[in-house]
Amino acid sequence: MTNVLPEHVENLRTRTHDFIREVVIPAEPRPGARLTDEAKAGLQQQARAAGVFAPHVPVEFGGQGLEIEYWSPVFQEAGYSPIGASVLNCMAPDEGNMHMLNLIGTDDQKIRYLTPLAAGEVRSSFAMTEPHPGAGSDPDALMTTAELRGERWSISGRKRFISGADGAGFFIVMARTPAVEGAKAGATMFLVDAANPGVRLGRHIHTIDRAIGGGHPHVDFEDCLVDRDAVLGEVGLGFRYAQVRLGPARLTHCMRWLGLARRSLDIALDRIGQRQIFGAPIDELGIAQEMIAQSVIDIETSDAIITKTAGLLATDGKAGSAMSSIAKVYCSEAVNRVIDRSIQLCGGDGVSDDLPLASYLNEVRPFRIYDGSNETHKWVISRRASARRKKAVEHGEPFLATLYDDEENTHS
Amino acid sequence: MTNVLPEHVENLRTRTHDFIREVVIPAEPRPGARLTDEAKAGLQQQARAAGVFAPHVPVEFGGQGLEIEYWSPVFQEAGYSPIGASVLNCMAPDEGNMHMLNLIGTDDQKIRYLTPLAAGEVRSSFAMTEPHPGAGSDPDALMTTAELRGERWSISGRKRFISGADGAGFFIVMARTPAVEGAKAGATMFLVDAANPGVRLGRHIHTIDRAIGGGHPHVDFEDCLVDRDAVLGEVGLGFRYAQVRLGPARLTHCMRWLGLARRSLDIALDRIGQRQIFGAPIDELGIAQEMIAQSVIDIETSDAIITKTAGLLATDGKAGSAMSSIAKVYCSEAVNRVIDRSIQLCGGDGVSDDLPLASYLNEVRPFRIYDGSNETHKWVISRRASARRKKAVEHGEPFLATLYDDEENTHS
Amino acid sequence: MTNVLPEHVENLRTRTHDFIREVVIPAEPRPGARLTDEAKAGLQQQARAAGVFAPHVPVEFGGQGLEIEYWSPVFQEAGYSPIGASVLNCMAPDEGNMHMLNLIGTDDQKIRYLTPLAAGEVRSSFAMTEPHPGAGSDPDALMTTAELRGERWSISGRKRFISGADGAGFFIVMARTPAVEGAKAGATMFLVDAANPGVRLGRHIHTIDRAIGGGHPHVDFEDCLVDRDAVLGEVGLGFRYAQVRLGPARLTHCMRWLGLARRSLDIALDRIGQRQIFGAPIDELGIAQEMIAQSVIDIETSDAIITKTAGLLATDGKAGSAMSSIAKVYCSEAVNRVIDRSIQLCGGDGVSDDLPLASYLNEVRPFRIYDGSNETHKWVISRRASARRKKAVEHGEPFLATLYDDEENTHS
Amino acid sequence: MTNVLPEHVENLRTRTHDFIREVVIPAEPRPGARLTDEAKAGLQQQARAAGVFAPHVPVEFGGQGLEIEYWSPVFQEAGYSPIGASVLNCMAPDEGNMHMLNLIGTDDQKIRYLTPLAAGEVRSSFAMTEPHPGAGSDPDALMTTAELRGERWSISGRKRFISGADGAGFFIVMARTPAVEGAKAGATMFLVDAANPGVRLGRHIHTIDRAIGGGHPHVDFEDCLVDRDAVLGEVGLGFRYAQVRLGPARLTHCMRWLGLARRSLDIALDRIGQRQIFGAPIDELGIAQEMIAQSVIDIETSDAIITKTAGLLATDGKAGSAMSSIAKVYCSEAVNRVIDRSIQLCGGDGVSDDLPLASYLNEVRPFRIYDGSNETHKWVISRRASARRKKAVEHGEPFLATLYDDEENTHS
Repeated sequence: MTNVLPEHVENLRTRTHDFIREVVIPAEPRPGARLTDEAKAGLQQQARAAGVFAPHVPVEFGGQGLEIEYWSPVFQEAGYSPIGASVLNCMAPDEGNMHMLNLIGTDDQKIRYLTPLAAGEVRSSFAMTEPHPGAGSDPDALMTTAELRGERWSISGRKRFISGADGAGFFIVMARTPAVEGAKAGATMFLVDAANPGVRLGRHIHTIDRAIGGGHPHVDFEDCLVDRDAVLGEVGLGFRYAQVRLGPARLTHCMRWLGLARRSLDIALDRIGQRQIFGAPIDELGIAQEMIAQSVIDIETSDAIITKTAGLLATDGKAGSAMSSIAKVYCSEAVNRVIDRSIQLCGGDGVSDDLPLASYLNEVRPFRIYDGSNETHKWVISRRASARRKKAVEHGEPFLATLYDDEENTHS
Repeated sequence: MTNVLPEHVENLRTRTHDFIREVVIPAEPRPGARLTDEAKAGLQQQARAAGVFAPHVPVEFGGQGLEIEYWSPVFQEAGYSPIGASVLNCMAPDEGNMHMLNLIGTDDQKIRYLTPLAAGEVRSSFAMTEPHPGAGSDPDALMTTAELRGERWSISGRKRFISGADGAGFFIVMARTPAVEGAKAGATMFLVDAANPGVRLGRHIHTIDRAIGGGHPHVDFEDCLVDRDAVLGEVGLGFRYAQVRLGPARLTHCMRWLGLARRSLDIALDRIGQRQIFGAPIDELGIAQEMIAQSVIDIETSDAIITKTAGLLATDGKAGSAMSSIAKVYCSEAVNRVIDRSIQLCGGDGVSDDLPLASYLNEVRPFRIYDGSNETHKWVISRRASARRKKAVEHGEPFLATLYDDEENTHS
Repeated sequence: MTNVLPEHVENLRTRTHDFIREVVIPAEPRPGARLTDEAKAGLQQQARAAGVFAPHVPVEFGGQGLEIEYWSPVFQEAGYSPIGASVLNCMAPDEGNMHMLNLIGTDDQKIRYLTPLAAGEVRSSFAMTEPHPGAGSDPDALMTTAELRGERWSISGRKRFISGADGAGFFIVMARTPAVEGAKAGATMFLVDAANPGVRLGRHIHTIDRAIGGGHPHVDFEDCLVDRDAVLGEVGLGFRYAQVRLGPARLTHCMRWLGLARRSLDIALDRIGQRQIFGAPIDELGIAQEMIAQSVIDIETSDAIITKTAGLLATDGKAGSAMSSIAKVYCSEAVNRVIDRSIQLCGGDGVSDDLPLASYLNEVRPFRIYDGSNETHKWVISRRASARRKKAVEHGEPFLATLYDDEENTHS
Repeated sequence: MTNVLPEHVENLRTRTHDFIREVVIPAEPRPGARLTDEAKAGLQQQARAAGVFAPHVPVEFGGQGLEIEYWSPVFQEAGYSPIGASVLNCMAPDEGNMHMLNLIGTDDQKIRYLTPLAAGEVRSSFAMTEPHPGAGSDPDALMTTAELRGERWSISGRKRFISGADGAGFFIVMARTPAVEGAKAGATMFLVDAANPGVRLGRHIHTIDRAIGGGHPHVDFEDCLVDRDAVLGEVGLGFRYAQVRLGPARLTHCMRWLGLARRSLDIALDRIGQRQIFGAPIDELGIAQEMIAQSVIDIETSDAIITKTAGLLATDGKAGSAMSSIAKVYCSEAVNRVIDRSIQLCGGDGVSDDLPLASYLNEVRPFRIYDGSNETHKWVISRRASARRKKAVEHGEPFLATLYDDEENTHS
């Protein structure tokens, strides 16, 4: 349990570190602009050549085969550039979709969907969220349905805020399914080609983040017909798989954004290292020192809770998923604080396009809402803590809230 | 790098967990009272029998031989009771003194000082802090001196806030020494018996914490004569050793107090689990849920940064010591928040002696000041971050604060 | 609406400022000790002579006749010493009881109860809180009852956490009353002499605050008989009066504690003004400056919200009472922060008895719980905001959460 | 000192309230878009007709003649729409320029500059900030100079971040002047027509805010010749006037943005009032209630400190200007928090263009940096507090940091 990384991990981390600085940062678009598909393709080619492409993907699908407990140092290096994860093909939502396809897809599904996705040839999208009052923070409210008609499933329903949908090659669609052929009623996941005539891309929801290619549009499914082998995993177990996907997906967001927080602090340190105010170097001035120290603390504690969660995910998926709620809330807020402080340290330039910090802030702000809002996670964290404690006391842990003056107290 | 503890660690953790609940908690004095020496001796005897005594001490000195990277889970269990660490003989300042004696003491010194200390037969004290303007947060200001007179050193100076001094069997005293016999001028540590006639115990400084036996008195050294073999480590290297001591000592404080934070949350959960307000169980009410969730997050992130720091201390003392500043600031504040919220959740009983929470708060409040105030650590953390970044840029990391409009900018 | 105080207020404020510094501060007991009754009586005599006694009490009852909108500057001066409000006879709970007696007492009740209370000859207590699950934060749960038997009321029930009860001359007791003689069923307040044989003082609840004379004991009422003229105000309107009492009572707590916060900051400024660290005066070091600035901001904003609330209470009791929830939450937390920072700025002395700061912290910590816990107030504040906004929209305010893409949206 | 507004103020506030809701809100551009000059002119015409135009401008210049201590309620109403202040012609930087022209301009200057500015016929700009290392947060570093050549001044220097410069009709330029004709060396303000051939508009600095018309460009002055009567106020007193301008200008920012914070909370309340999650209305859920309550507290305390500061500015400009630093830091952070929470309460829509909240956040974020960064203000606040306390002790206030055990202490 020391922090020394195995050699293959340290090597990949170092290669990624160097690749980001030598290749990716010089190619970053200016604040407000997006990376073009052509530029991305060229950078991905260089990433393959440098041996840093798709770090989390098994070697047989063209990746670096990194174990989940070691994703963090490498994903943080990727996230040091806002386009790093896209270039390395470990960006949401594709990264989570690859992870899930690898875990529960059939061999045929892996060949058909995982192979091109891992290779960066197509993008994908995860279609779960629905317009109010459908499935949002509350998955039980799922309104999209699928019903079996002979050898095909017909999917109907509206989805919204489907990140990456525009330009995606396929969707993983969550739909409510009835009890059928021995499977219980529940939710089921389907692999649906974007070209399926039952798929219709709707209005884009324009948000302040830009890093996820394909935006956040509405997507409608209207009598969308797919074969039986489009079912991902087993019928009726969709929500269980969603948890399998969401725990790591939440955590990789933390890793990537933490890389961007490190970048932000470095920008601020570089900036204020050159400057003087009131006749003293700014980084010698205490109010700046307070801010720098708090940012360092935010970064190191975020790193630590990510490491802890990743370790749990590797050995105990359920505990890891529960811990990922904690990591998500903490890191999403810590990362916001770090970038916000860096802006403040850079003064007027911090809120201008002359530095990328303001655009970083807009990039990470939604992360406190996406993947389950922090408030929803806190509600879950609290209920879990209460339930676990009640159970522990029932199983023999001493009850600790007896007032000391019990005897007198019974008379008062 | 998964979180699974080795079997011997998990076993010791479980034994400690059970011992605290079955033996220690029932023996806790009421808020405001202190554990008597007799009661402590009896509990220590039971701890030896239960195989949980002195977890951090090498087996040859009667301890459990736990490696530093595994101290945290066991020390947290000890700290679940405010008297737990004393009973298990892993309380400050003895625990840090044992650690240092074991690392740099001669065999004779170990026999004479470490053996009885590890056995719980004597207590010890670390005499570094001095009255203003002497060595406080700023060790360079050290005013106590030692000079070599033939075969003996004569130590003179006043120390204050010497935790554990009253009743201690010996002191480790930091004094300024001149260049002598090949050693550079600097600070040197001396082992001084409390019975030495040159030692005089002064006024106690009454503080709001109670957990450290022996209080925080002044101690004066007046022509205090010790033999040459009283030098701990080498002459002139005292500050280097102080860092060796302080990194782990800071971190074990974090571990113990985190145990107490867990206890506080459990008290609050037990308390509010029974209660209703506005017709609903309190732990279903969202404002309470917000507080519970924040406390869980504080506890888990504190645990994570401690684990990270302990892992570093095991492999890279210097990096570990630097990280311990971060852990100290974060954990001391997190622990305060957790206990404070638990008080709030318990209402009027929380600030009364009917529950121990208010006494816990007074116990941990000073930790934000002791072992270097958090502000001093933040100052250090910030300076280190600035210096490291400057060095990195000098060594080839890209400078990141160039304004985008460089060209235009040169005209503006 | 400028901030210039009328001359009579400014004069009283100045007199109080000087009296506190010249007479009260030199007489303060050391941390942990209490002011003796004899010492208090002597100081009160001096306060009368100095024309600063009972600032809020009408002149005809021996006070200074200050209007409620001007209490704040004078009460803050009083609160600059932890014993100041007791000496000036404007301490809780007496101060709130005087205010209520003056507003709703009969002439006879004023002569019998208000006159000696205002003169500092007796203390009083407000008996509303009950053991769980009785009236605590939730007044609807009131379990103490009173029933009319001929010409006397018989009161029965148990009260707890009755601040000031030990040694009080009389109680104002809240009890549930049935519909009787035209009055609706509800709660009613009764004036009960402490000597009444139906009153029994119970166990004290030992809390960390010391400033309220008479502690926080349990009080039982067992067939406690009082005459009809013991009813304070009208039968059945007890809760309405409680609100009349609680709004100002909450706010005067804010005023007094804000005075203590000012004292704490002054202690810290005096302390660090003398000191150097790292070769620079501490108050030139930025991390200290950050803390000082935040404390100044906390103090000035607390002062401002108190002024706003006091102004409202003077002209619109209901709005003022609602605003007092906001002031209470804000000021109780701000005052805690200010004292906590002052402790931190004073280092080890801050947590010792050599300075009074740690005792101040214990004094004000309960204020976040007393008078309705801050969480309860936040719950109320939030519900009021939601209800008011709903009503405003119903009455014509534009509804503001229509999504921009309404039209498209209807298709998506 | 009650809070009841005089009738003429309450009437203007009500008219403004209604005008914003009936006329301005329906005309707001969508997020990201700007108000066109034509649209603004039309709305300003309606504002004149409604008797709400230029509330702070003397009646003789076409305004409503509101006294500074009553600006807050009216400016908050204006700020309830992000375009409100522009429509009512009380937006920065024009509003501050009008205020200063009215206070220190000559009659001729008022006719030539204030009249058209107050009428909304031209915009203006305040040119003080310079490129690093010139005057930024530190006005002493002023590098732009003016020298007297016969009957004309020649101004030379570069300014940057000159808000509103693009399209402005004239500038108020701060330049360093030598000792001349009895005036001391110092800084002097000049009125410079934008059409002056010595004025050259430079590169725009693109920032995340949009509300200030005319952007934040660089402006160069190259041998820019103006007549003697272009001096605003007296030669050499420029910084003193800058303080006259900046105190109120900072505070009116607080007022306007506080209006926008109110709007944001209303949006969130409207939004969540309609929604359910986990089967309960969101505004009944405690974690939301916590956020709502904190926002209400932020709004009311901001309002209170603004009122306090405005009252001071009306009677004691120097004290008011000092207090405006406190108000600026507090309100700029409170407003950010309120908008940020409202975004969080609205979930994914909160970070999308379907609601205006994300654009509001970008609008107010720079306010923590503009007009002196909050860190600079905190530095000033802290130094003022230290200096004031030292002076008070020198003048007889008791020194409060003597340790209790003085006597013993002298021996220890």
